[in-house]
Amino acid sequence: MRKSLAALDGISAIILDMDGVLYTGDRPIEGASRAVKWFRGRGKKLIFSTNNSASTRTEYVRKLAKMGISVRESEIVTSGYATAMYLRKRCPRAKIYVIGENGLRSELKQVGLKLVSQGEAEEATHVVAGLDRKINYSKIAGGLRALLAGAEFIATNADTTYPTEVGLSPGAGAMVGALAGCAGKEPSLVIGKPSPNILKIALRLLSARPRETAIIGDRIDTDVRAGKMTGLRTILVLSGACTKKEVQKVEDTEMAPDFVFKSIVEVVN
Amino acid sequence: MRKSLAALDGISAIILDMDGVLYTGDRPIEGASRAVKWFRGRGKKLIFSTNNSASTRTEYVRKLAKMGISVRESEIVTSGYATAMYLRKRCPRAKIYVIGENGLRSELKQVGLKLVSQGEAEEATHVVAGLDRKINYSKIAGGLRALLAGAEFIATNADTTYPTEVGLSPGAGAMVGALAGCAGKEPSLVIGKPSPNILKIALRLLSARPRETAIIGDRIDTDVRAGKMTGLRTILVLSGACTKKEVQKVEDTEMAPDFVFKSIVEVVN
Repeated sequence: MRKSLAALDGISAIILDMDGVLYTGDRPIEGASRAVKWFRGRGKKLIFSTNNSASTRTEYVRKLAKMGISVRESEIVTSGYATAMYLRKRCPRAKIYVIGENGLRSELKQVGLKLVSQGEAEEATHVVAGLDRKINYSKIAGGLRALLAGAEFIATNADTTYPTEVGLSPGAGAMVGALAGCAGKEPSLVIGKPSPNILKIALRLLSARPRETAIIGDRIDTDVRAGKMTGLRTILVLSGACTKKEVQKVEDTEMAPDFVFKSIVEVVN
Repeated sequence: MRKSLAALDGISAIILDMDGVLYTGDRPIEGASRAVKWFRGRGKKLIFSTNNSASTRTEYVRKLAKMGISVRESEIVTSGYATAMYLRKRCPRAKIYVIGENGLRSELKQVGLKLVSQGEAEEATHVVAGLDRKINYSKIAGGLRALLAGAEFIATNADTTYPTEVGLSPGAGAMVGALAGCAGKEPSLVIGKPSPNILKIALRLLSARPRETAIIGDRIDTDVRAGKMTGLRTILVLSGACTKKEVQKVEDTEMAPDFVFKSIVEVVN
Protein backbone atom coordinates (compact mmCIF):
# COMPACT_ATOMS: atom_id res chain seq x y z
CA MET A 1 0.00 0.00 0.00
CA ARG A 2 1.26 3.43 -0.90
CA LYS A 3 1.54 6.50 1.30
CA SER A 4 -1.50 8.64 2.00
CA LEU A 5 0.27 11.83 1.04
CA ALA A 6 0.68 10.50 -2.47
CA ALA A 7 -2.95 9.33 -2.48
CA LEU A 8 -4.26 12.88 -2.22
CA ASP A 9 -1.46 14.70 -4.08
CA GLY A 10 -3.03 17.11 -6.52
CA ILE A 11 -6.54 16.18 -5.37
CA SER A 12 -8.87 19.08 -4.58
CA ALA A 13 -12.18 17.19 -4.53
CA ILE A 14 -13.20 13.88 -2.99
CA ILE A 15 -16.29 11.77 -3.60
CA LEU A 16 -16.89 9.65 -0.51
CA ASP A 17 -18.98 6.55 -0.74
CA MET A 18 -20.80 6.28 2.58
CA ASP A 19 -21.83 2.70 3.43
CA GLY A 20 -18.71 0.68 4.22
CA VAL A 21 -16.53 3.82 4.24
CA LEU A 22 -18.07 6.07 6.90
CA TYR A 23 -20.40 3.58 8.54
CA THR A 24 -21.74 0.04 8.47
CA GLY A 25 -25.51 0.24 8.76
CA ASP A 26 -25.97 2.57 11.73
CA ARG A 27 -22.50 2.00 13.24
CA PRO A 28 -19.81 4.61 12.40
CA ILE A 29 -16.45 3.31 11.20
CA GLU A 30 -13.67 4.33 13.58
CA GLY A 31 -11.96 7.55 12.62
CA ALA A 32 -14.47 8.47 9.92
CA SER A 33 -15.41 11.72 11.59
CA ARG A 34 -11.72 12.62 12.11
CA ALA A 35 -10.93 11.88 8.47
CA VAL A 36 -13.72 14.10 7.19
CA LYS A 37 -12.50 16.93 9.46
CA TRP A 38 -8.98 16.41 8.12
CA PHE A 39 -10.23 16.74 4.52
CA ARG A 40 -12.14 19.90 5.42
CA GLY A 41 -9.08 21.33 7.23
CA ARG A 42 -7.11 20.96 3.99
CA GLY A 43 -9.80 22.64 1.91
CA LYS A 44 -10.91 19.57 -0.03
CA LYS A 45 -14.31 19.86 -1.65
CA LEU A 46 -16.45 16.89 -0.60
CA ILE A 47 -19.42 14.95 -1.96
CA PHE A 48 -20.97 12.16 0.09
CA SER A 49 -22.45 9.63 -2.27
CA THR A 50 -24.64 6.53 -2.08
CA ASN A 51 -26.48 4.25 -4.49
CA ASN A 52 -29.30 4.04 -1.97
CA SER A 53 -32.36 6.04 -3.04
CA ALA A 54 -34.64 5.16 -0.15
CA SER A 55 -33.70 8.09 2.11
CA THR A 56 -33.64 11.82 1.38
CA ARG A 57 -30.49 13.94 1.57
CA THR A 58 -31.90 15.58 4.70
CA GLU A 59 -32.09 12.15 6.32
CA TYR A 60 -28.44 11.52 5.46
CA VAL A 61 -27.42 14.87 6.96
CA ARG A 62 -29.08 13.75 10.21
CA LYS A 63 -27.62 10.26 10.08
CA LEU A 64 -24.08 11.59 9.62
CA ALA A 65 -24.56 14.27 12.28
CA LYS A 66 -25.30 11.53 14.82
CA MET A 67 -21.89 10.08 13.95
CA GLY A 68 -20.16 13.38 14.50
CA ILE A 69 -19.83 14.07 10.79
CA SER A 70 -21.09 17.51 9.87
CA VAL A 71 -22.34 17.68 6.28
CA ARG A 72 -24.49 20.11 4.29
CA GLU A 73 -27.41 18.77 2.26
CA SER A 74 -25.78 20.17 -0.88
CA GLU A 75 -22.83 17.83 -0.31
CA ILE A 76 -24.96 14.68 -0.48
CA VAL A 77 -25.72 12.80 -3.69
CA THR A 78 -28.00 9.77 -3.48
CA SER A 79 -28.90 7.83 -6.62
CA GLY A 80 -32.38 9.30 -6.15
CA TYR A 81 -31.08 12.87 -6.12
CA ALA A 82 -28.75 12.15 -9.05
CA THR A 83 -31.73 10.77 -11.01
CA ALA A 84 -33.66 13.94 -10.22
CA MET A 85 -30.73 16.12 -11.36
CA TYR A 86 -30.34 14.11 -14.54
CA LEU A 87 -34.02 14.33 -15.46
CA ARG A 88 -34.34 18.00 -14.55
CA LYS A 89 -31.51 18.80 -16.94
CA ARG A 90 -32.48 16.53 -19.84
CA CYS A 91 -36.28 16.32 -19.59
CA PRO A 92 -37.60 19.09 -17.33
CA ARG A 93 -41.16 18.35 -18.50
CA ALA A 94 -40.93 14.63 -17.80
CA LYS A 95 -43.96 12.92 -16.29
CA ILE A 96 -42.55 10.23 -14.07
CA TYR A 97 -44.05 7.00 -12.84
CA VAL A 98 -42.04 6.00 -9.78
CA ILE A 99 -41.45 2.66 -8.15
CA GLY A 100 -39.49 3.72 -5.11
CA GLU A 101 -39.58 5.03 -1.59
CA ASN A 102 -40.02 8.47 -0.10
CA GLY A 103 -36.36 9.43 -0.62
CA LEU A 104 -36.68 9.03 -4.36
CA ARG A 105 -40.13 10.54 -4.73
CA SER A 106 -39.29 13.59 -2.68
CA GLU A 107 -35.98 14.28 -4.50
CA LEU A 108 -37.79 14.15 -7.85
CA LYS A 109 -40.53 16.47 -6.62
CA GLN A 110 -38.06 18.87 -4.99
CA VAL A 111 -36.38 19.66 -8.30
CA GLY A 112 -39.79 20.42 -9.79
CA LEU A 113 -40.44 17.20 -11.70
CA LYS A 114 -43.99 15.90 -12.10
CA LEU A 115 -44.90 12.46 -10.77
CA VAL A 116 -47.87 10.52 -12.12
CA SER A 117 -50.03 8.11 -10.14
CA GLN A 118 -50.89 4.49 -10.99
CA GLY A 119 -54.14 5.64 -12.58
CA GLU A 120 -52.25 7.94 -14.95
CA ALA A 121 -49.39 5.53 -15.66
CA GLU A 122 -50.03 5.52 -19.44
CA GLU A 123 -49.25 9.26 -19.51
CA ALA A 124 -45.77 8.80 -18.07
CA THR A 125 -42.79 9.75 -20.22
CA HIS A 126 -40.42 7.95 -17.84
CA VAL A 127 -40.54 5.08 -15.39
CA VAL A 128 -37.99 5.45 -12.59
CA ALA A 129 -37.35 2.32 -10.54
CA GLY A 130 -35.44 2.24 -7.27
CA LEU A 131 -35.50 0.30 -4.02
CA ASP A 132 -39.09 -0.05 -2.83
CA ARG A 133 -39.66 -2.12 0.26
CA LYS A 134 -43.42 -1.67 -0.20
CA ILE A 135 -43.37 -3.10 -3.71
CA ASN A 136 -46.64 -4.76 -4.74
CA TYR A 137 -48.38 -6.12 -7.81
CA SER A 138 -50.35 -3.01 -8.69
CA LYS A 139 -47.21 -0.83 -8.56
CA ILE A 140 -45.51 -3.24 -10.98
CA ALA A 141 -48.65 -3.27 -13.18
CA GLY A 142 -48.58 0.56 -13.34
CA GLY A 143 -44.94 0.47 -14.42
CA LEU A 144 -45.76 -2.15 -17.05
CA ARG A 145 -48.59 -0.02 -18.47
CA ALA A 146 -46.30 3.00 -18.65
CA LEU A 147 -43.53 1.05 -20.38
CA LEU A 148 -45.92 -0.57 -22.86
CA ALA A 149 -47.24 2.91 -23.66
CA GLY A 150 -43.70 3.96 -24.55
CA ALA A 151 -42.20 5.49 -21.39
CA GLU A 152 -38.40 5.39 -21.01
CA PHE A 153 -37.13 2.98 -18.37
CA ILE A 154 -34.60 4.44 -15.91
CA ALA A 155 -33.11 2.73 -12.85
CA THR A 156 -31.73 4.72 -9.91
CA ASN A 157 -29.35 1.77 -9.56
CA ALA A 158 -29.41 -1.98 -10.03
CA ASP A 159 -27.74 -3.21 -6.84
CA THR A 160 -28.70 -6.81 -6.30
CA THR A 161 -28.66 -6.57 -2.49
CA TYR A 162 -27.73 -4.37 0.43
CA PRO A 163 -26.50 -5.40 3.86
CA THR A 164 -28.86 -5.16 6.85
CA GLU A 165 -28.72 -6.32 10.45
CA VAL A 166 -30.42 -9.58 9.39
CA GLY A 167 -28.23 -10.25 6.36
CA LEU A 168 -28.52 -9.28 2.72
CA SER A 169 -31.85 -7.83 1.62
CA PRO A 170 -33.12 -7.34 -1.96
CA GLY A 171 -31.79 -4.14 -3.52
CA ALA A 172 -33.17 -2.00 -6.34
CA GLY A 173 -32.22 -4.83 -8.70
CA ALA A 174 -35.35 -6.68 -7.55
CA MET A 175 -37.65 -3.84 -8.62
CA VAL A 176 -35.75 -3.29 -11.85
CA GLY A 177 -35.88 -7.04 -12.54
CA ALA A 178 -39.62 -7.24 -11.84
CA LEU A 179 -40.30 -4.51 -14.41
CA ALA A 180 -37.84 -5.88 -16.93
CA GLY A 181 -39.37 -9.35 -16.51
CA CYS A 182 -42.86 -8.21 -17.46
CA ALA A 183 -42.08 -5.38 -19.88
CA GLY A 184 -39.55 -7.52 -21.72
CA LYS A 185 -36.92 -4.77 -21.74
CA GLU A 186 -34.03 -3.64 -19.58
CA PRO A 187 -33.55 -0.03 -18.36
CA SER A 188 -32.12 2.23 -21.04
CA LEU A 189 -30.29 4.14 -18.31
CA VAL A 190 -28.90 3.32 -14.87
CA ILE A 191 -27.86 6.31 -12.76
CA GLY A 192 -26.06 4.75 -9.76
CA LYS A 193 -22.66 3.07 -9.68
CA PRO A 194 -21.16 1.18 -11.50
CA SER A 195 -22.69 3.50 -14.10
CA PRO A 196 -20.59 6.67 -14.27
CA ASN A 197 -23.71 8.87 -14.36
CA ILE A 198 -23.90 9.49 -10.62
CA LEU A 199 -20.19 10.46 -10.53
CA LYS A 200 -20.61 12.85 -13.45
CA ILE A 201 -23.37 14.58 -11.53
CA ALA A 202 -21.16 14.68 -8.43
CA LEU A 203 -18.34 16.26 -10.48
CA ARG A 204 -20.72 18.92 -11.75
CA LEU A 205 -21.78 19.75 -8.19
CA LEU A 206 -18.13 19.84 -7.11
CA SER A 207 -17.17 22.01 -10.09
CA ALA A 208 -14.16 19.72 -10.29
CA ARG A 209 -12.29 18.08 -13.16
CA PRO A 210 -11.89 14.29 -13.02
CA ARG A 211 -8.09 14.36 -12.69
CA GLU A 212 -8.20 16.51 -9.55
CA THR A 213 -10.92 14.32 -7.99
CA ALA A 214 -10.63 11.10 -6.00
CA ILE A 215 -13.32 8.58 -5.12
CA ILE A 216 -13.02 6.71 -1.84
CA GLY A 217 -15.14 3.56 -1.83
CA ASP A 218 -15.34 0.04 -0.46
CA ARG A 219 -16.28 -1.87 -3.63
CA ILE A 220 -14.21 -2.67 -6.68
CA ASP A 221 -17.18 -3.60 -8.86
CA THR A 222 -19.01 -0.33 -8.25
CA ASP A 223 -16.86 2.44 -6.72
CA VAL A 224 -13.53 1.64 -8.37
CA ARG A 225 -15.17 0.68 -11.65
CA ALA A 226 -17.32 3.81 -11.91
CA GLY A 227 -14.33 5.93 -10.77
CA LYS A 228 -12.14 4.54 -13.52
CA MET A 229 -14.85 5.04 -16.15
CA THR A 230 -15.06 8.67 -15.07
CA GLY A 231 -11.30 9.25 -14.98
CA LEU A 232 -11.05 9.74 -11.19
CA ARG A 233 -8.27 8.66 -8.88
CA THR A 234 -9.58 5.54 -7.13
CA ILE A 235 -8.99 4.83 -3.46
CA LEU A 236 -10.29 1.57 -2.03
CA VAL A 237 -10.80 1.02 1.69
CA LEU A 238 -11.12 -2.43 3.23
CA SER A 239 -13.60 -1.41 5.95
CA GLY A 240 -16.62 -2.54 3.92
CA ALA A 241 -17.58 -5.12 1.34
CA CYS A 242 -14.16 -5.81 -0.19
CA THR A 243 -11.53 -8.21 1.15
CA LYS A 244 -7.74 -8.22 0.60
CA LYS A 245 -8.18 -11.35 -1.50
CA GLU A 246 -10.46 -9.54 -3.92
CA VAL A 247 -7.88 -6.76 -4.22
CA GLN A 248 -5.21 -9.32 -5.04
CA LYS A 249 -7.42 -10.75 -7.77
CA VAL A 250 -7.54 -7.43 -9.64
CA GLU A 251 -3.85 -6.56 -9.08
CA ASP A 252 -2.14 -5.85 -12.40
CA THR A 253 -5.54 -5.57 -14.13
CA GLU A 254 -7.20 -2.38 -15.29
CA MET A 255 -9.57 -2.67 -12.32
CA ALA A 256 -6.77 -2.31 -9.76
CA PRO A 257 -7.51 0.68 -7.52
CA ASP A 258 -4.84 3.43 -7.49
CA PHE A 259 -4.53 3.19 -3.69
CA VAL A 260 -5.70 0.74 -1.06
CA PHE A 261 -6.10 1.47 2.68
CA LYS A 262 -7.47 -0.46 5.63
CA SER A 263 -9.97 2.29 6.35
CA ILE A 264 -10.59 5.95 5.70
CA VAL A 265 -8.63 7.05 8.76
CA GLU A 266 -5.51 5.50 7.22
CA VAL A 267 -5.88 7.77 4.22
CA VAL A 268 -5.26 10.76 6.49
CA ASN A 269 -2.85 9.23 9.02
CA MET B 1 -54.41 -23.48 -45.01
CA ARG B 2 -54.66 -27.22 -45.28
CA LYS B 3 -57.65 -29.46 -44.64
CA SER B 4 -58.56 -30.48 -41.10
CA LEU B 5 -58.66 -34.14 -41.97
CA ALA B 6 -54.99 -34.00 -42.81
CA ALA B 7 -54.32 -31.99 -39.65
CA LEU B 8 -55.38 -34.85 -37.40
CA ASP B 9 -54.34 -37.78 -39.62
CA GLY B 10 -52.47 -40.29 -37.51
CA ILE B 11 -52.98 -38.21 -34.37
CA SER B 12 -54.28 -40.06 -31.31
CA ALA B 13 -53.52 -37.44 -28.65
CA ILE B 14 -54.04 -33.68 -28.56
CA ILE B 15 -52.62 -31.10 -26.17
CA LEU B 16 -54.99 -28.14 -26.11
CA ASP B 17 -53.76 -24.78 -24.97
CA MET B 18 -56.71 -23.15 -23.22
CA ASP B 19 -56.48 -19.33 -23.22
CA GLY B 20 -57.03 -18.06 -26.75
CA VAL B 21 -58.05 -21.52 -27.98
CA LEU B 22 -61.07 -22.48 -25.82
CA TYR B 23 -61.78 -19.10 -24.22
CA THR B 24 -60.66 -15.51 -23.92
CA GLY B 25 -60.64 -14.63 -20.23
CA ASP B 26 -64.05 -15.84 -19.11
CA ARG B 27 -65.68 -15.80 -22.56
CA PRO B 28 -65.80 -19.14 -24.44
CA ILE B 29 -64.63 -19.15 -28.06
CA GLU B 30 -67.45 -20.15 -30.41
CA GLY B 31 -67.54 -23.83 -31.19
CA ALA B 32 -64.92 -24.78 -28.57
CA SER B 33 -67.30 -27.09 -26.72
CA ARG B 34 -68.36 -28.73 -30.02
CA ALA B 35 -64.74 -29.24 -31.06
CA VAL B 36 -63.84 -30.95 -27.78
CA LYS B 37 -66.86 -33.25 -28.13
CA TRP B 38 -65.78 -34.06 -31.70
CA PHE B 39 -62.29 -35.02 -30.47
CA ARG B 40 -63.79 -37.21 -27.75
CA GLY B 41 -66.18 -38.81 -30.24
CA ARG B 42 -63.17 -39.88 -32.29
CA GLY B 43 -61.37 -41.32 -29.29
CA LYS B 44 -58.59 -38.73 -29.13
CA LYS B 45 -56.78 -38.57 -25.80
CA LEU B 46 -56.81 -34.97 -24.56
CA ILE B 47 -54.73 -32.78 -22.26
CA PHE B 48 -55.83 -29.23 -21.50
CA SER B 49 -52.77 -27.17 -20.82
CA THR B 50 -51.94 -23.66 -19.56
CA ASN B 51 -48.84 -21.76 -18.47
CA ASN B 52 -50.95 -20.12 -15.79
CA SER B 53 -50.13 -21.46 -12.31
CA ALA B 54 -52.50 -19.26 -10.30
CA SER B 55 -55.50 -21.60 -10.34
CA THR B 56 -55.79 -25.27 -9.40
CA ARG B 57 -56.81 -27.99 -11.83
CA THR B 58 -60.13 -28.27 -9.97
CA GLU B 59 -60.76 -24.62 -10.70
CA TYR B 60 -60.13 -25.22 -14.41
CA VAL B 61 -62.53 -28.17 -14.42
CA ARG B 62 -65.21 -25.81 -13.06
CA LYS B 63 -64.32 -22.99 -15.44
CA LEU B 64 -64.55 -25.27 -18.49
CA ALA B 65 -67.75 -26.90 -17.24
CA LYS B 66 -69.41 -23.47 -17.21
CA MET B 67 -68.53 -23.23 -20.91
CA GLY B 68 -70.09 -26.62 -21.66
CA ILE B 69 -66.71 -28.34 -21.85
CA SER B 70 -66.60 -31.45 -19.71
CA VAL B 71 -63.08 -32.28 -18.52
CA ARG B 72 -61.60 -34.50 -15.85
CA GLU B 73 -59.02 -33.06 -13.45
CA SER B 74 -56.53 -35.66 -14.69
CA GLU B 75 -56.75 -34.10 -18.15
CA ILE B 76 -55.56 -30.68 -16.98
CA VAL B 77 -51.92 -29.63 -16.83
CA THR B 78 -51.12 -26.18 -15.48
CA SER B 79 -47.51 -25.02 -15.21
CA GLY B 80 -48.02 -25.33 -11.45
CA TYR B 81 -49.09 -28.97 -11.70
CA ALA B 82 -46.32 -29.71 -14.19
CA THR B 83 -43.80 -28.20 -11.75
CA ALA B 84 -45.21 -30.40 -9.01
CA MET B 85 -44.96 -33.50 -11.23
CA TYR B 86 -41.41 -32.62 -12.22
CA LEU B 87 -40.23 -32.13 -8.64
CA ARG B 88 -42.02 -35.18 -7.30
CA LYS B 89 -40.22 -37.33 -9.85
CA ARG B 90 -36.75 -35.77 -9.60
CA CYS B 91 -36.58 -34.53 -6.00
CA PRO B 92 -39.35 -36.10 -3.93
CA ARG B 93 -37.69 -34.82 -0.73
CA ALA B 94 -37.41 -31.23 -1.97
CA LYS B 95 -38.13 -28.43 0.50
CA ILE B 96 -39.69 -25.72 -1.57
CA TYR B 97 -39.88 -21.99 -0.99
CA VAL B 98 -42.75 -20.75 -3.16
CA ILE B 99 -43.50 -17.36 -4.61
CA GLY B 100 -46.89 -18.00 -6.15
CA GLU B 101 -50.61 -18.23 -5.61
CA ASN B 102 -52.88 -20.89 -4.22
CA GLY B 103 -53.00 -22.88 -7.47
CA LEU B 104 -49.26 -23.46 -7.35
CA ARG B 105 -48.97 -24.06 -3.62
CA SER B 106 -51.81 -26.52 -3.54
CA GLU B 107 -50.57 -28.53 -6.57
CA LEU B 108 -47.15 -28.86 -4.93
CA LYS B 109 -48.66 -29.95 -1.62
CA GLN B 110 -51.10 -32.37 -3.30
CA VAL B 111 -48.27 -34.45 -4.76
CA GLY B 112 -46.72 -34.65 -1.29
CA LEU B 113 -43.98 -32.05 -1.61
CA LYS B 114 -42.92 -30.03 1.44
CA LEU B 115 -43.21 -26.24 1.37
CA VAL B 116 -41.12 -24.04 3.67
CA SER B 117 -42.19 -20.69 5.11
CA GLN B 118 -40.35 -17.37 4.91
CA GLY B 119 -38.83 -18.03 8.31
CA GLU B 120 -37.32 -21.31 7.11
CA ALA B 121 -36.29 -20.03 3.66
CA GLU B 122 -32.60 -20.90 4.21
CA GLU B 123 -33.58 -24.57 4.51
CA ALA B 124 -35.17 -24.66 1.06
CA THR B 125 -33.62 -26.91 -1.58
CA HIS B 126 -35.67 -25.22 -4.32
CA VAL B 127 -37.26 -21.84 -4.96
CA VAL B 128 -40.29 -22.08 -7.25
CA ALA B 129 -41.50 -18.78 -8.69
CA GLY B 130 -44.81 -18.30 -10.48
CA LEU B 131 -47.39 -15.59 -10.91
CA ASP B 132 -48.12 -14.00 -7.52
CA ARG B 133 -50.49 -11.07 -7.49
CA LYS B 134 -49.80 -10.64 -3.77
CA ILE B 135 -46.07 -10.32 -4.29
CA ASN B 136 -44.32 -8.20 -1.64
CA TYR B 137 -40.85 -7.35 -0.40
CA SER B 138 -40.63 -9.95 2.34
CA LYS B 139 -41.64 -12.74 -0.06
CA ILE B 140 -38.84 -11.64 -2.40
CA ALA B 141 -36.43 -11.40 0.55
CA GLY B 142 -37.28 -14.99 1.54
CA GLY B 143 -36.57 -16.16 -1.99
CA LEU B 144 -33.28 -14.26 -1.97
CA ARG B 145 -32.20 -15.89 1.31
CA ALA B 146 -33.04 -19.33 -0.05
CA LEU B 147 -31.14 -18.73 -3.30
CA LEU B 148 -28.11 -17.29 -1.48
CA ALA B 149 -28.12 -20.39 0.73
CA GLY B 150 -27.87 -22.53 -2.41
CA ALA B 151 -31.45 -23.45 -3.36
CA GLU B 152 -32.15 -24.24 -7.03
CA PHE B 153 -34.17 -21.62 -8.87
CA ILE B 154 -37.17 -22.95 -10.84
CA ALA B 155 -39.79 -20.91 -12.68
CA THR B 156 -43.26 -22.29 -13.40
CA ASN B 157 -43.06 -20.10 -16.50
CA ALA B 158 -41.63 -16.75 -17.49
CA ASP B 159 -44.52 -15.16 -19.39
CA THR B 160 -44.00 -11.43 -19.45
CA THR B 161 -47.73 -10.59 -19.34
CA TYR B 162 -51.19 -12.07 -19.56
CA PRO B 163 -54.35 -10.50 -20.95
CA THR B 164 -57.04 -9.25 -18.57
CA GLU B 165 -60.21 -7.21 -18.96
CA VAL B 166 -58.17 -4.05 -18.25
CA GLY B 167 -55.31 -4.87 -20.62
CA LEU B 168 -52.04 -6.68 -20.13
CA SER B 169 -51.03 -7.47 -16.55
CA PRO B 170 -47.61 -8.57 -15.28
CA GLY B 171 -47.07 -12.31 -15.69
CA ALA B 172 -44.81 -14.70 -13.82
CA GLY B 173 -41.88 -13.00 -15.57
CA ALA B 174 -42.20 -10.16 -13.06
CA MET B 175 -41.69 -12.48 -10.08
CA VAL B 176 -38.91 -14.38 -11.81
CA GLY B 177 -37.26 -11.07 -12.75
CA ALA B 178 -37.52 -9.72 -9.19
CA LEU B 179 -35.71 -12.77 -7.82
CA ALA B 180 -33.16 -12.84 -10.63
CA GLY B 181 -32.51 -9.13 -10.12
CA CYS B 182 -31.56 -9.54 -6.46
CA ALA B 183 -30.04 -13.04 -6.48
CA GLY B 184 -27.98 -12.23 -9.53
CA LYS B 185 -28.92 -15.44 -11.30
CA GLU B 186 -31.57 -16.65 -13.70
CA PRO B 187 -33.73 -19.77 -13.13
CA SER B 188 -31.89 -22.98 -13.93
CA LEU B 189 -35.18 -24.47 -15.11
CA VAL B 190 -38.40 -23.12 -16.61
CA ILE B 191 -41.32 -25.57 -16.74
CA GLY B 192 -43.94 -23.75 -18.83
CA LYS B 193 -43.91 -23.09 -22.59
CA PRO B 194 -41.82 -22.22 -24.58
CA SER B 195 -39.79 -24.69 -22.53
CA PRO B 196 -40.64 -28.22 -23.67
CA ASN B 197 -40.82 -29.47 -20.05
CA ILE B 198 -44.56 -28.96 -19.63
CA LEU B 199 -45.25 -30.81 -22.92
CA LYS B 200 -43.02 -33.70 -21.92
CA ILE B 201 -45.07 -34.06 -18.74
CA ALA B 202 -48.29 -33.87 -20.80
CA LEU B 203 -46.98 -36.62 -23.10
CA ARG B 204 -46.24 -38.82 -20.10
CA LEU B 205 -49.77 -38.33 -18.79
CA LEU B 206 -51.18 -39.06 -22.26
CA SER B 207 -48.97 -42.16 -22.64
CA ALA B 208 -48.48 -40.87 -26.16
CA ARG B 209 -45.47 -40.61 -28.48
CA PRO B 210 -44.64 -37.19 -29.90
CA ARG B 211 -45.33 -38.16 -33.53
CA GLU B 212 -48.91 -39.24 -32.77
CA THR B 213 -49.59 -36.07 -30.73
CA ALA B 214 -50.68 -32.61 -31.84
CA ILE B 215 -50.61 -29.35 -29.93
CA ILE B 216 -53.31 -26.79 -30.68
CA GLY B 217 -52.30 -23.32 -29.51
CA ASP B 218 -52.68 -19.63 -30.26
CA ARG B 219 -49.05 -18.50 -29.96
CA ILE B 220 -46.10 -19.14 -32.22
CA ASP B 221 -43.47 -18.12 -29.67
CA THR B 222 -44.75 -20.51 -26.99
CA ASP B 223 -47.14 -23.20 -28.27
CA VAL B 224 -45.66 -23.79 -31.73
CA ARG B 225 -42.11 -23.37 -30.48
CA ALA B 226 -42.48 -25.79 -27.56
CA GLY B 227 -44.40 -28.20 -29.81
CA LYS B 228 -41.60 -28.24 -32.37
CA MET B 229 -38.96 -28.73 -29.68
CA THR B 230 -40.92 -31.74 -28.45
CA GLY B 231 -41.51 -33.22 -31.90
CA LEU B 232 -45.30 -32.70 -31.93
CA ARG B 233 -47.50 -31.76 -34.83
CA THR B 234 -48.24 -28.06 -34.40
CA ILE B 235 -51.65 -26.53 -35.09
CA LEU B 236 -52.03 -22.79 -34.72
CA VAL B 237 -55.42 -21.12 -34.29
CA LEU B 238 -55.98 -17.42 -34.92
CA SER B 239 -58.63 -16.97 -32.20
CA GLY B 240 -56.10 -15.71 -29.65
CA ALA B 241 -52.86 -13.78 -29.50
CA CYS B 242 -51.52 -14.46 -33.01
CA THR B 243 -52.44 -12.56 -36.17
CA LYS B 244 -52.28 -13.67 -39.81
CA LYS B 245 -49.40 -11.25 -40.31
CA GLU B 246 -47.33 -13.00 -37.67
CA VAL B 247 -48.01 -16.32 -39.37
CA GLN B 248 -46.82 -14.87 -42.68
CA LYS B 249 -43.61 -13.74 -41.00
CA VAL B 250 -42.66 -17.28 -40.01
CA GLU B 251 -43.78 -18.90 -43.31
CA ASP B 252 -40.93 -20.91 -44.81
CA THR B 253 -39.02 -20.76 -41.52
CA GLU B 254 -38.56 -23.60 -39.07
CA MET B 255 -41.13 -21.89 -36.80
CA ALA B 256 -43.96 -22.25 -39.33
CA PRO B 257 -46.83 -24.23 -37.75
CA ASP B 258 -47.81 -27.44 -39.55
CA PHE B 259 -51.42 -26.25 -39.84
CA VAL B 260 -53.21 -22.93 -39.35
CA PHE B 261 -56.94 -22.47 -38.67
CA LYS B 262 -59.13 -19.51 -37.83
CA SER B 263 -60.32 -21.21 -34.66
CA ILE B 264 -60.59 -24.62 -33.05
CA VAL B 265 -64.01 -25.28 -34.57
CA GLU B 266 -62.42 -25.10 -38.03
CA VAL B 267 -60.09 -27.92 -37.12
CA VAL B 268 -63.10 -30.22 -36.84
CA ASN B 269 -65.36 -28.73 -39.54
